[in-house]
Amino acid sequence: MSGKPARAKATEGASVSPVDDRSVAARLFAILDAFTSPPATALSLTAIARRSGIPLSTAHRLVAEWVTWGGLARQEDGRYSLGMRLWEVGVQTPTARNLRTIALPYLEDLYETTREHVHLAILDGRDALYLEKLSGHRAVRVISRVGGRLPLHATGVGLVLLAHAPTMVIQDYLAEPLQRFLPQTMTAPEELRRRLAGIRSQGIVRMSEEMTAGSSSLAAPIRDRTGQVVAAVSIVTHTSPGQGPEHEQAVRVAAQGVSRALGYRRAS
Amino acid sequence: MSGKPARAKATEGASVSPVDDRSVAARLFAILDAFTSPPATALSLTAIARRSGIPLSTAHRLVAEWVTWGGLARQEDGRYSLGMRLWEVGVQTPTARNLRTIALPYLEDLYETTREHVHLAILDGRDALYLEKLSGHRAVRVISRVGGRLPLHATGVGLVLLAHAPTMVIQDYLAEPLQRFLPQTMTAPEELRRRLAGIRSQGIVRMSEEMTAGSSSLAAPIRDRTGQVVAAVSIVTHTSPGQGPEHEQAVRVAAQGVSRALGYRRAS
Repeated sequence: MSGKPARAKATEGASVSPVDDRSVAARLFAILDAFTSPPATALSLTAIARRSGIPLSTAHRLVAEWVTWGGLARQEDGRYSLGMRLWEVGVQTPTARNLRTIALPYLEDLYETTREHVHLAILDGRDALYLEKLSGHRAVRVISRVGGRLPLHATGVGLVLLAHAPTMVIQDYLAEPLQRFLPQTMTAPEELRRRLAGIRSQGIVRMSEEMTAGSSSLAAPIRDRTGQVVAAVSIVTHTSPGQGPEHEQAVRVAAQGVSRALGYRRAS
Repeated sequence: MSGKPARAKATEGASVSPVDDRSVAARLFAILDAFTSPPATALSLTAIARRSGIPLSTAHRLVAEWVTWGGLARQEDGRYSLGMRLWEVGVQTPTARNLRTIALPYLEDLYETTREHVHLAILDGRDALYLEKLSGHRAVRVISRVGGRLPLHATGVGLVLLAHAPTMVIQDYLAEPLQRFLPQTMTAPEELRRRLAGIRSQGIVRMSEEMTAGSSSLAAPIRDRTGQVVAAVSIVTHTSPGQGPEHEQAVRVAAQGVSRALGYRRAS
């Protein structure tokens, strides 16, 4: 669950013989990657070829393969988008499906109690990967989305996941320069290290205006049967100084509910 | 959105030269298909090779390609499961993401009002494909799941989607023998044809114990800007004769809310 999978790079593909399996697989994956980094809803064949670094004629042939299987769909304007077959396979991924299925009733409760955005995220590489997001009509505008990624040091779920990551992961994360999104984003390694220790001892993080102006977040860890932190739950609210501790309680209760459903029993 | 994508079959793969792009792509897809029909959470390399009809040595090489990209993950017991990278790409599929994002607040409202399972489904081939499912702790047991498929004639969302499908689609669907899941499952083409006409005129379907014993369903169509039915919303409840029309009203309101959000304006 931790550790981002190595992504196939096909930019050097032009120099590889096209009869090599490895090159065909890497190129097929590079075509999908063209839609995800940065995210694109629809791309022309030329754009796919450019983004994936594949010669146009090869891209043409491989895109047709994806279309036949249903992984890409050709739109009326001739451009291509990710196809429903990928969605159908993707939602069967056991980690995403099991965790989401188990967590959903507790996320529902949290949403009903607070009426704020509710997030469920896991650690993936240097990012918090958002598995679920529940939102009402009137919740504050946020940039998170299901399947989206946000940096660990600037989000509530991210800080919780980083705080409970293996020491080496924390060390590596803090060793690289961290982006400052807003004046209040914490980027100094030593300051962050103290904050992570505080999160571990308090079991919750409260942060305000570190990623998006006007919004605050409360996040807590979800543990599995072995006590390991496997996910984080959060609510994101309008920043408001008058907010009492009742929201904090609701986030803790939701995180504990999911943890219990995963088999976690707190040592008494 | 309608029309199931043709799925690559690689069962005859052994006779195709392995240096052919087409064969490599078809085999890569056949490996994923091994996990979905029937659904499997984890498979050994041998099981993957058998299910996909690919020689073991080829399967070994291509599974390694999927693992490198993150589309498959190797478990501690040596078996393989679908990987998070597939989930991440899959949830970016525009149809699934846009419809789900737009519909979710209305589905939330419907869940809060009724406290029953809430479903969002689209037509895909001969199935209702479930895009979303919200469930409370105490809702009735059902067999639907996100990304799952159920037959059109035996589910509430399925009947709504079939009722508003093109005439040719209805004709083809009714031309094949339909499975009877329970004594009350309607399978006679003429009877179903009358029922579909009724659904079109009433704008809602109520069904009871046609797929799962003890459960009933209420479903209504979701229309886009052009007036075309693009999805269906339903609630699934315990079968209970005392149930009043208030649930029916709630389902209609939710379907209308999503339709309006998609740009639909009813002709007055």
